[in-house]
Amino acid sequence: MHHFADRLTNRISQLSNPTVVGLDPRFSQIPEFIKAAALIRHGKTREAAAQSILEFNKGIIDAVCDVVPAVKPQIAFYECYGWEGFRAYEETIRYAQRKGMIVIGDGKRNDIGSTATAYAEGHLGQVAFFDGLVSILDTDALTVTPYLGSDGIKPFVDQCQKYGKGIFVLVRTSNPSAEEIQSQAVGDHLMDEHVASLVESWGREAIGENGFSAVGAVVGATYPEEAKILRNLMPNQLFLVPGYGAQGGGAQDVKPCFYPNGTGAIVNSSRGIIFAYKAKEKDEKSFAECAREAALEMKEDLARLF
Amino acid sequence: MHHFADRLTNRISQLSNPTVVGLDPRFSQIPEFIKAAALIRHGKTREAAAQSILEFNKGIIDAVCDVVPAVKPQIAFYECYGWEGFRAYEETIRYAQRKGMIVIGDGKRNDIGSTATAYAEGHLGQVAFFDGLVSILDTDALTVTPYLGSDGIKPFVDQCQKYGKGIFVLVRTSNPSAEEIQSQAVGDHLMDEHVASLVESWGREAIGENGFSAVGAVVGATYPEEAKILRNLMPNQLFLVPGYGAQGGGAQDVKPCFYPNGTGAIVNSSRGIIFAYKAKEKDEKSFAECAREAALEMKEDLARLF
Repeated sequence: MHHFADRLTNRISQLSNPTVVGLDPRFSQIPEFIKAAALIRHGKTREAAAQSILEFNKGIIDAVCDVVPAVKPQIAFYECYGWEGFRAYEETIRYAQRKGMIVIGDGKRNDIGSTATAYAEGHLGQVAFFDGLVSILDTDALTVTPYLGSDGIKPFVDQCQKYGKGIFVLVRTSNPSAEEIQSQAVGDHLMDEHVASLVESWGREAIGENGFSAVGAVVGATYPEEAKILRNLMPNQLFLVPGYGAQGGGAQDVKPCFYPNGTGAIVNSSRGIIFAYKAKEKDEKSFAECAREAALEMKEDLARLF
Repeated sequence: MHHFADRLTNRISQLSNPTVVGLDPRFSQIPEFIKAAALIRHGKTREAAAQSILEFNKGIIDAVCDVVPAVKPQIAFYECYGWEGFRAYEETIRYAQRKGMIVIGDGKRNDIGSTATAYAEGHLGQVAFFDGLVSILDTDALTVTPYLGSDGIKPFVDQCQKYGKGIFVLVRTSNPSAEEIQSQAVGDHLMDEHVASLVESWGREAIGENGFSAVGAVVGATYPEEAKILRNLMPNQLFLVPGYGAQGGGAQDVKPCFYPNGTGAIVNSSRGIIFAYKAKEKDEKSFAECAREAALEMKEDLARLF
């Protein structure tokens, strides 16, 4: 069972590209020709909505899989179409993995220990079945929330260790109101720094050959000063960095998340890549081509940092 | 559109029972005869696992629907069986609502604003469809996490207002390690008290006729001293109280969550009700009967408080 952080960092280094494409298939922005085809095949049903999402994702994955090491489907945009949407999520995971990509499920899941175990088993490990265990979602990694403390994290770490998977714990999110809780002073530190120390301790037993832990951290690109502090507090954590592109973060803003040698972080872009055809004002039929172009531009933008 | 908090408090008062049954259908504890029947119909498939969960839930719902106002399915135990499990979650919601029960989805969801909108629309409101909007999960309420601040909560409050739905924000969870983050001192208060003040402000615009907000709070039964303080900080919040029963909380422990007139809170029990046949060492075929007995015992236990 190959260690998650080794798999991810090796793939980043093979492709010389520390980026991840966020698969956030907002229905209203999916090209009309894809939705029209689904309507013809499935009528005006939830199935047609789910198939539109899946077809769109396949186009994006095909276009970027030899350039980008990982995708990060945001589960909200799938489960908001019910079980048909959830099936499209599963099929997206399978398709991306078949194309050689690492899949980070963005679910921000968590709960008390016994429930966190169910999430960990279902997303990353294996669940109880009739006479044994079975893999279900088999994602490579999952984002999780820290608010419940260690009890909610340990079950994930167990499954990570057992099945070569990873988690990214929310430390500093990229949204403006992150400050309301994460910037509160706790002793001499901010709350997110306190969480960072916990994350560092949770990940200590799960460090791979490349020096990074299977327990990573989400650190938004929109708070570069804070990212410097967090980089020091979590030396062995891979940072999953949202907020680049559409949310306003640039290459200089993500720089503090990396080590000077260019390791230590993977930067996400969602809308900026998958809906690039809109920003570039191109025909919707070229959505995949535009996504590839945008992914290459992002790779170059980050390459200039090191 | 009737206000969620009014609907819930009215139903609690009709049944004189401020409890909610947690539908946490841990596969390994579902009676063997249910699983055997599903195996015969569906073979050793994920569908058979999902059908076992659904049949078990239907038995519990039938047994308690005239005694208990609400059920709280824990989404982890459904989605850990993939899309078939997620379908069983949807079918559980529909079945419980047809039997007159209010359904609180326990998903502890949240994200940055635009993503929180997708969760809010999918779980509580309506999502974009081919030429308009459509309801998907249509749960009555959902549990959400506070770590991202207001941005992540507002989209839920919007859907609550529009569709008569509710949310319960995690303030104090019932697990032992809750203290690692929630008991950190922030100025003169603990972190959970700071979150309580935010929750109070988020709920201010959504107060119903009975004086309670559509924005409620999760406050664990396992920290009764803290619950007293939180009750004062959140006068208009309904408390959803986990931790009674299997997690160790008793009636005296949940008392501080209530007002002296018996309003203001709804207490959850999951394992203690749905798997009562195990604790009572009864035949598994009597699982529904045992659940009803346990639900009535819990109702009496709480009635003695007021």
